[in-house]
Formats: sequence, structure tokens, C-alpha cells
Amino acid sequence: MVLKGDLQVVALAGGVGGAKLVYGLAKTLPPDRLTIIGNVGDDLTLYGLHISPDLDTVMYTLADVANPATGWGVAGDTQHMGDMLRRYGEMPWFMLGDKDLATHLLRSQWLAEGHTLTEVTRRLSQGLGVSQRLLPVTADPVSTMVDTVELGILAFQEYFVRHRWQPVVRRIWYAGIETAHISRAVAQAVEEADIIVFCPSNPMLSIEPILAVPGMRERLRARKGKCVAVSPFIGGQAVKGPAAKLMREQGIEPTPAYLAEYYGGLLDGLVIDQADRELAGQVTNLPVLVTQTLMMSSEDKVRLAGEVLDWVGRL
Amino acid sequence: MVLKGDLQVVALAGGVGGAKLVYGLAKTLPPDRLTIIGNVGDDLTLYGLHISPDLDTVMYTLADVANPATGWGVAGDTQHMGDMLRRYGEMPWFMLGDKDLATHLLRSQWLAEGHTLTEVTRRLSQGLGVSQRLLPVTADPVSTMVDTVELGILAFQEYFVRHRWQPVVRRIWYAGIETAHISRAVAQAVEEADIIVFCPSNPMLSIEPILAVPGMRERLRARKGKCVAVSPFIGGQAVKGPAAKLMREQGIEPTPAYLAEYYGGLLDGLVIDQADRELAGQVTNLPVLVTQTLMMSSEDKVRLAGEVLDWVGRL
Repeated sequence: MVLKGDLQVVALAGGVGGAKLVYGLAKTLPPDRLTIIGNVGDDLTLYGLHISPDLDTVMYTLADVANPATGWGVAGDTQHMGDMLRRYGEMPWFMLGDKDLATHLLRSQWLAEGHTLTEVTRRLSQGLGVSQRLLPVTADPVSTMVDTVELGILAFQEYFVRHRWQPVVRRIWYAGIETAHISRAVAQAVEEADIIVFCPSNPMLSIEPILAVPGMRERLRARKGKCVAVSPFIGGQAVKGPAAKLMREQGIEPTPAYLAEYYGGLLDGLVIDQADRELAGQVTNLPVLVTQTLMMSSEDKVRLAGEVLDWVGRL
Repeated sequence: MVLKGDLQVVALAGGVGGAKLVYGLAKTLPPDRLTIIGNVGDDLTLYGLHISPDLDTVMYTLADVANPATGWGVAGDTQHMGDMLRRYGEMPWFMLGDKDLATHLLRSQWLAEGHTLTEVTRRLSQGLGVSQRLLPVTADPVSTMVDTVELGILAFQEYFVRHRWQPVVRRIWYAGIETAHISRAVAQAVEEADIIVFCPSNPMLSIEPILAVPGMRERLRARKGKCVAVSPFIGGQAVKGPAAKLMREQGIEPTPAYLAEYYGGLLDGLVIDQADRELAGQVTNLPVLVTQTLMMSSEDKVRLAGEVLDWVGRL
């Protein structure tokens, strides 16, 4: 459709919001033209299982098994394991669906056998029939941490799920990132990409822990392709999750102009929602595409993906 | 009912067969009078989870949540995780129910946190409201291994579940048992027991890996209480599982006389089924109780438990 020849597209994505645009891209591009680089900063270990919520959300989306009501988890999944945990007197705060558990069990087993997270993610994706490439940005452990006013330092999922992102965040960092490095597959994907899209994911909690892995910013700066970001903000709010709240807590107003500045020299263009049309003029350093970025239906996702790819092709 | 005062009963039990008599004992005795010492030789690790099938069967039985159709697993359990494993192209040969998984996840987490299997089993049991004491014979790893004619050496569950105990067994041993030791709680329970019952479990695969843990035979020999075994054989056959087949493969006929000899000087009496009445006379070294040992209903289990306790009280 929009991409002639063998143009390669790379998408940087976090969880639910990013996966929506990934879905649109996947329905728009031949599978071998799309690589998704996923965030691992929100990974956690529960009951000895290695859980990668963002990778799973993207993988389930690409496999067409994602729960349409939530955007995460497996469609039609049940909670019998969780019910039994409660019978044991446990208070599970992180929902692990019964089908979803199979993913975590296999991932944990394969990691324990010495496979990298990159290899494990490939095997899981292939097992579900995903033909696009889904790459964790790094196979090394990186843990997004937040320091909150009310509860002090929390691991990401404690903040995000257990406390429903209500605590006020003073500081965010990515534990372990100094010694992490991007995988060879990620480096190669960025190098070969003709188009790079930052999906409308949380800039500080989803995109930044991808960009901050040593080697990633350098590779992006050396890109041959065009790089654009789709803003996750609509009228100063996030569609879902703490992106806007979090920015304001850092004293930042979530505007297109701020986002253009935040991503610094990495972008060749910014896509913003029509609700922010009058703010487009404040973006002085980048071309801006104003369109409907709110993705409610599958059609919305496919349309936005097509518009973004078309626009980048004309930049 | 049958036990006056504070008499203490200890039962040695494997899986389904043993759990039936344990059920009867539990319905007959005050909870604080019954301790069950369980087999851990059939424990296995799958997907990084520590699974203790025999302990779980006894625990679920005591908690009244066991699947009545199979004797193992949780009543009304589902297989959604397993279905998803198959979707990933896995061929799971060991069934892990969704509710059942909660047990393995908690056990694995608590073991990883440094708790012993003894402590973990206590916490799990208490979580399910079990007020009897369920003790793994040892907190150390012991793995029952079988050398088979057709497939060579197999871990126990590979033999038992994966290959449905069809291979012919040349040799059985318990890997790791030399360096294992009975827990302090087990030693104390045997020391304080007024009655010790070997449940009708597989002598070679369930009772022997309990007896063979260093310290166990010595403690039993030094017992103050009476010790009896309930034969798992009825008319030369096991009610369930490979007990009779396995003995014949070792050139042994599964008779009351053999069992009396097999358990050596540990017994003060042997309980056999009425179907073997004419073989009772061959047991020359022990008093024998002939009764219905086949336990189909709850009433059967309670009746047999009562008869055994009554009889031991008169020995």
C-alpha cells in the first residue's frame, strides 16, 4: 500500500497505547517489513516467573489474541490460578490470567536454560504465529524505578499496577541500564530502518527506557531513515495511564512543543491530535502532522498507521 | 472415637492410594493427633516450578479440595494454561491445572526465598485450612529414578506420567538420598508416635523413598509406638498404578508374606484385603488383620481407618 519495495519500518512501543499503533502498522505492512522494539523496563519477577508486560501486550496484539477490552492480557482468559492464590490467603495485585501464565512459564524456563530474552521473545512470538519481528530493546535486565512522595521508592509495577499510578512521582530512573546494551538485532534494525516510529506510548515510562539503553540514542542519531513520534497526548491528557499526570508532577506541561523538545534531535517529525491543532504552531523545530490520533477501533489504528507512513514518506 | 487421651498417630503416605487412608484417619482423629509424613521422591521441576505431587495429593485431600474423580489435583480445576502451552506448540505431558498452579507458584517462590520444603508445606497446608501436620520426610532433594528396559534411565514422573508406567523397570534408586536427612519435625513425630501406619501406597515408589532417607529406619526401629502397614495389594494386583507390575518385574510376587518380609523388622502388624484371606497364613512373622482394604467411598476410608486404629490398639 504505502511502502514501495523493501522499505523497513521500526516501531518503538511500550504497552497498550503503543500496541494500538503497532496493530495498525501490522495490518498495513507486509510482516517482513515491520520490526517492533519493545520496552523491558516494566518487566517484573513474580512467583519466580519473568513477566514482560509490554512485550506481551505487543505480542498478543500481533497474534490477534489480545483482550480487546483491556488491551493487555489474552482474550477470554480466566483467573482460576489467581482465585486459588486468594484461597491461600495471598493478595495478588498483579493479574496473571491462566492462559497468560503459559507465556510466563515458558519465558522463565527458556531464560533459565540460558536463552536470551531476545531469543525467548522470538520463540514465543513464533509460537503464536507472529511473523513480524518483536525485539526487546535489550536482553539485559533494566528496571524502571520511581521515587514517590507518598510511598518512597517503588518498582515500576508496584507504582503502576499495585498503587494504580496514584502516588506523586519525584524521580524516575532505570536501574541496571548503565550496564545494559542494545541487542545486535536492535542495532541492526535501527541501522536498516527507512522509517522509525515512536508509538504513542508514555514518553518517560515506555519510550525513554528504550532510548536510554546504551547504544540506542547513538544508533538513532546515526539513522539513515526518517524518525517520527506520535504524541500520546490529546488536549493535554493521556488516553490512558499516567503519562500526563507524571509530566505535570515533574513540572512539565504535556504539549506538542514539549514533546518535540523532549525527544531532542532524534525526530524528523511529530504527529499530534487534532484536539491540539492550535498548539501545532508552538512546535518550531519539526514538521507536524495534525490528525486524529485517538484509536478506538481497528479502523482508527489502520488509518493512523497509513497516514503516518504516507506522511513520513513525503518528509 | 478409637483413640483415648492424647495418642499420636503418624501415617506414611505416597499419593492417591495413601491419601485415601489419610482421609479416613483425618475423619477419625482430632486434627492435632494426626501427622502425615509424605514422599518427596516424585517431586519434579517443570517450567521452573517445584512440584510435589504426593504432598499435594495428601494436602488437597486433607483440605477437602481434591478432585474426587482422579484423587489428585484440585476439584473443578481447568486447563487453560495447558491449552495455551499447546498453542505455543508445547506438548505438556504433566498436567498442571490452573488452580493447582497457585500451589506450585507459591511453593517455588517461598523455596526461592530460602524457606525449607517443610516450612513451605506447612504454610501451604495452613493456607488451605489443613489442621493436621503434613511433613515432607526430608527438606532435601531426593529424586526417585528408574532404569527401564525400553527407555533407559528415567526420572520418576517421566516413567510414571509421561510413559504411563509402561516401561519395564530394571532398577529403582533415589538420587540424592545419601546426603538427605529427615527433618527434625519428622524425627520428633516418629519418636512421639503411639501408632505408625504405612498407608497402602506403592512400597517401592512411595514408602521406600520415605524409609530410605537416612535417619528414618533408625527412628522407626527405636519407636515406642506400634507400627502397621496396610497392604496396597488386593488379589495380587494394585488398586491403581504400577505397584504389582513393578514388583513382578523385579521377580517378586506381591503377596502379604512378601510385604511382611519387605518391611522387615519395622512392623508390628499387617493389614490385608479379604481377597487375600487364604494367603494370611503365609505371614508367619506378624499378626495380620484381614478386612476390606478397597476404599471406594468416603465411608470405606473412615471404616478402614477405624478398624486399623482399633486393631493396633489391641496389638
